[in-house]
Amino acid sequence: MVSTFTAQRCIEHFTAPDTAVLGRVLREFVADGKYVRSTFAYLGWLCGQPESGTAAQAVASLELLHAFALIQDDVMDDSATRRGRPTVHRQLADWHTRNHTGQGAQRFGRSAAILLSDLCLLWADRMLREADLTTAELDRAWPVYDLMRSELAVGQFSDLLNDTATAPSLEAVLDIARRKSGNYTVRRPLELGAAMAGCTREHTVALQRYGALIGEAFQLRDDQLGVLGDPCTTGKPLGDDLRQGKATSVTVIAREMATPHQRNQMKTLTAALPRSADDDPEWVCSWQKLIVATGAHSRVEQLIDQRVVAASHLLKVARLPALPLQGLMLLAEKCSRRDH
Amino acid sequence: MVSTFTAQRCIEHFTAPDTAVLGRVLREFVADGKYVRSTFAYLGWLCGQPESGTAAQAVASLELLHAFALIQDDVMDDSATRRGRPTVHRQLADWHTRNHTGQGAQRFGRSAAILLSDLCLLWADRMLREADLTTAELDRAWPVYDLMRSELAVGQFSDLLNDTATAPSLEAVLDIARRKSGNYTVRRPLELGAAMAGCTREHTVALQRYGALIGEAFQLRDDQLGVLGDPCTTGKPLGDDLRQGKATSVTVIAREMATPHQRNQMKTLTAALPRSADDDPEWVCSWQKLIVATGAHSRVEQLIDQRVVAASHLLKVARLPALPLQGLMLLAEKCSRRDH
Repeated sequence: MVSTFTAQRCIEHFTAPDTAVLGRVLREFVADGKYVRSTFAYLGWLCGQPESGTAAQAVASLELLHAFALIQDDVMDDSATRRGRPTVHRQLADWHTRNHTGQGAQRFGRSAAILLSDLCLLWADRMLREADLTTAELDRAWPVYDLMRSELAVGQFSDLLNDTATAPSLEAVLDIARRKSGNYTVRRPLELGAAMAGCTREHTVALQRYGALIGEAFQLRDDQLGVLGDPCTTGKPLGDDLRQGKATSVTVIAREMATPHQRNQMKTLTAALPRSADDDPEWVCSWQKLIVATGAHSRVEQLIDQRVVAASHLLKVARLPALPLQGLMLLAEKCSRRDH
Repeated sequence: MVSTFTAQRCIEHFTAPDTAVLGRVLREFVADGKYVRSTFAYLGWLCGQPESGTAAQAVASLELLHAFALIQDDVMDDSATRRGRPTVHRQLADWHTRNHTGQGAQRFGRSAAILLSDLCLLWADRMLREADLTTAELDRAWPVYDLMRSELAVGQFSDLLNDTATAPSLEAVLDIARRKSGNYTVRRPLELGAAMAGCTREHTVALQRYGALIGEAFQLRDDQLGVLGDPCTTGKPLGDDLRQGKATSVTVIAREMATPHQRNQMKTLTAALPRSADDDPEWVCSWQKLIVATGAHSRVEQLIDQRVVAASHLLKVARLPALPLQGLMLLAEKCSRRDH
């Protein structure tokens, strides 16, 4: 349904010939989504109300919000690939190179992608508002929706300052991860659905606690994949986080657990950072081996497990309806064991 | 009131020590606004309803929307100054240089400014929603508000493709100007206020026609100032549009009106483009003299005059209430005669 809504908006607004490329790129991007956030929000809804096409339409707007976040994030990181394709700004830069004689394809790609992400943000808002929820349902949704969006932007800002050069603590890294990704991916979508449905206080608290745990597990898994993931399944270049010198749970734990000798090896590798994505797969492999050798990889797996166990326990005592309970159990596993 | 709302959001969301800089920069930026769009929207409201603090609060959200647009636009153009200060991304880059040892201050500045602009967009939306309008008033406002925001992004996209290298026609340049700036500055704000107030069809049509004319006059004046404006009053560097090779009404008309000799002079000047802002004030002065010599400057003044005269005539026959009528007359003059 988010694909239909997006296609309608593209027809409505991309009327000038040159804007057709925006529609093509965006429709493809949205169709590739994994629907994680909208599924969590819908499960939140099901904790208070029966199945509903209107609610499904409302929460599908989170996929457009997520498209906004990803497109913009890729511009900021100048990432090369996303979901197995060139990132949106790279696609738009290529289009400019093919179709325009003027200079500045890279800059054009970045600016055009930012504008396309703006449209995703606006249209997400519109999709939620026009989903035909009752006024009461919508009024309960906005505070969560507003909080989620602002938190996302503020979390991204903190993330900009958070690189290995500043040597943050694990607690600081987890805190940013929680605000930037965990809350945004699991907890706030659940809260949004629960608020729309008018869930009981007891159920809402259970969803919040589950959301905090699985959100962290999700982010810890993301950090593992960013360092050790297979680019064929993640759709992102090998060792992206390492090359960008990002401080993630994995790299911070690796630094903490490293022997003095391993720490020296890290310094040598950091100093030998290759410039571009395909420069030196050897360099990434050496880093990966070193991280596994410190025990950081196993430690992060343990942290993930603890969170999944705690969340499952919590669900068992929360007396949620059977349908969302089953879904939440399944997603706890899926989010923390995934390979992409 | 937009300053108060912004300050409240900053307190709410900028709790981490490093985020304080965002609040400082944003509050200063918002306080410097000229309130053009919110004034137009309020005049639209007054065509259907009496004075109202609630309506004033609602339309003040347009100042946050405008902050979003300007901050993002300045990143895309990498402009150095705005409203007589360094642009937001430059201020944030400077802050990074002073406070962080890591590399990449320019990139940080751009990304942080984009995130701050996102917050402005979100908060504008929230300010309008929370202004305490009736559900009916708000329901009438959203379609105009959505259209205005999408149009702005799409217009910005067209503007990216629009540089002197592509030699667009005057009609194409005016069309982009209308969608990107004219509609956004005058027509849509008027329509927004009128929709909120539930104005009569007759009054709404008059406001739309006035808005289209004065929106164009506003943009034509902007184009004049971009080429010939005094940096001390515009707050932007001398001849910014010329240096960026932007196709504006002034430069397109100058090309059309130029003699073969003048056209050769233009080619020579274009080839000798200085690289940075302060490189060569002589270069800008030569361009300015050349443009005046083609007669383009006078022709644009004539186009502005025609639009102001037509708009004034239109107002006289539209039977609007006295208070907004007076305001619209005054603003027609202000927008088209301003020096900044």
